Amino acid sequence: MTDRVYNFYPGPATLPLSALKKAKEELLNWNGTGMSVMEISHRSKEWDNALNEANLLLRKLMDISDDYTILWMGGGASTQFYQVPLNLGLEGRPMEYVNTGRWSTKAIAEAVRFGEVRTVASSEDDDFKYIPKDVSFSDGAAFAHITGNNTIYGTEWHEWPDTDGDVPLVSDMSSNLMDRVTDVKKFGAIYAGAQKNLGPAGVTLLIVREDLLGRVPDDTPSMQKWITYHKKNSMFNTPPVFNIYMCKLSMEHLDEIGGVKAQEKKNRKKAELLYDVIDSSDGFYEGWARKEDRSLMNVSFRLPSEELEQKCVEEGAKRGLIGLKGHRSVGGMRASIYNAMSIEGVETLTKFLTEFKEKHE
Amino acid sequence: MTDRVYNFYPGPATLPLSALKKAKEELLNWNGTGMSVMEISHRSKEWDNALNEANLLLRKLMDISDDYTILWMGGGASTQFYQVPLNLGLEGRPMEYVNTGRWSTKAIAEAVRFGEVRTVASSEDDDFKYIPKDVSFSDGAAFAHITGNNTIYGTEWHEWPDTDGDVPLVSDMSSNLMDRVTDVKKFGAIYAGAQKNLGPAGVTLLIVREDLLGRVPDDTPSMQKWITYHKKNSMFNTPPVFNIYMCKLSMEHLDEIGGVKAQEKKNRKKAELLYDVIDSSDGFYEGWARKEDRSLMNVSFRLPSEELEQKCVEEGAKRGLIGLKGHRSVGGMRASIYNAMSIEGVETLTKFLTEFKEKHE
Repeated sequence: MTDRVYNFYPGPATLPLSALKKAKEELLNWNGTGMSVMEISHRSKEWDNALNEANLLLRKLMDISDDYTILWMGGGASTQFYQVPLNLGLEGRPMEYVNTGRWSTKAIAEAVRFGEVRTVASSEDDDFKYIPKDVSFSDGAAFAHITGNNTIYGTEWHEWPDTDGDVPLVSDMSSNLMDRVTDVKKFGAIYAGAQKNLGPAGVTLLIVREDLLGRVPDDTPSMQKWITYHKKNSMFNTPPVFNIYMCKLSMEHLDEIGGVKAQEKKNRKKAELLYDVIDSSDGFYEGWARKEDRSLMNVSFRLPSEELEQKCVEEGAKRGLIGLKGHRSVGGMRASIYNAMSIEGVETLTKFLTEFKEKHE
Repeated sequence: MTDRVYNFYPGPATLPLSALKKAKEELLNWNGTGMSVMEISHRSKEWDNALNEANLLLRKLMDISDDYTILWMGGGASTQFYQVPLNLGLEGRPMEYVNTGRWSTKAIAEAVRFGEVRTVASSEDDDFKYIPKDVSFSDGAAFAHITGNNTIYGTEWHEWPDTDGDVPLVSDMSSNLMDRVTDVKKFGAIYAGAQKNLGPAGVTLLIVREDLLGRVPDDTPSMQKWITYHKKNSMFNTPPVFNIYMCKLSMEHLDEIGGVKAQEKKNRKKAELLYDVIDSSDGFYEGWARKEDRSLMNVSFRLPSEELEQKCVEEGAKRGLIGLKGHRSVGGMRASIYNAMSIEGVETLTKFLTEFKEKHE
């Protein structure tokens, strides 16, 4: 028996065990340097190599071409909510957003400070249970913004919307980065707080097409401009070294298991296992999201009563199934099954849910 | 024999060994939760407790009164270079800075975007080898800004300048936070990137008087406003959990050895050991900073030739004394002896420097 639990928290979330073990093993002496990776200068040759390796590995895993740059930043995806309009906005051209829930709403709230924002589609009319279809953006938009996956409601874009060639599509992929094979070329920019599919909290990844970096006004504070990070390979100032290192270990794990394609297969299997329990429960478990828009990463569902929901969360916890309480805005339960969640973990959960239903229906 | 080196890097820098050992021990199972501290939800009761404990410990160590708030942020001190003028600037009132070197210069360069900046004193006339004396700020200034310690030149403020009661004194203390007993009440705000005296890179500490939080314009993006962090106990969005946790472990070590007072005594001893070698070397080693302004944290010095400097850095490295190369802008050598550097480490360095001199003078 392990003393580790199955962690279904929505983020920060479970990390690959092999990455944690490696980090533990070399925590006092990294890479033969005689110091922790937390202690080494970011200007050292050793760290420079590690950062470049992390970038190369990400390029390999996501098949990122050379016209895109990879940036590592602090401040979380919430910081990008204002940095996206600041860096990609264009005088006199609207910024267009699709509102699929809480995180889109927050992104829009920051963008309105920077110019005209148009919400071109929204699923608010049905409590964000779906992803709007046939979304179209204006040809003259500065950029088009979506939230790739919606952690609270458990919805996910399965087909990326089209934009006119000149309108860069931007996605917050904090909770679905590398959950399946994604054509980066469809996007002008992808950003992601690390703490779901990539690593620990404290670092944000930005993948952006280089030709877009020149849009930002020159007199913008240095740390608000993406181009500042680009020019210095994310080391204009001291980056979150340990956090990037953990992302690297996590990506090494992903590479070892066969990359994003293998991960996607595993993710589809995990999601299928869990949605099957819901769909075959004769209404005891009721999924929040519409079936066609269900997330591979977050499975949100309700039980017949709040009492049963609370009981289910508590009994799950006793069995080492942690973090199953739903977000307060939709209630119920939510199992977050990010890349690092094992099939075994999901099977343990489905077994528990099946037994719980039999006992309480 | 240990496989650890003595790490004199200017930051990221050496951390307390006990903190690293504790982190290693519980890296896969923190606090009996069955998960890493990197994996637990920042909304969990366990993390909430840990964050509050970290804040209480900092209040104890620095004797911070209740009219100050403690904020943990991402983005490094460089982010504060623009957030200080943004959050503390006042319409029609100048922002006054003392320029003591590279980091002050960078802070000033960001501030000019936000209003009138006056550099009221500077040591640029003598290559930043000293701290200006008898500095006075205008009564009507929005705030007065200093850089508490200057890592490159090895100078440090030993007496804080006075400001009019209404003019908040702001200090970048990235490289001298808690290096000696400091009266926080002298300051309106203190900020510090963690990676020298507090923890690993990736988190920035801000200690600010609460009454100053209302100055920022309402329509400022949420993540740029200190008040956003204050209202949510640094958890408006996901904070850099692991980085804060490491700061906590590091502070626990500081508390165990007797707090800042005991640390100051140790720091003075370390600095004395090293400056003594320089001063008694008959000019073989030449300190960069004027004696009265010497830093307790960074000891910058030159040797008779660049060849000898390079040789000294290389031979030091062979003996496990790492990171002694000076910053390119002043050249020579620099030993950064932050709080976590042991007296034993400094003694090993002084022994080496003494032998090196005997061999090469």
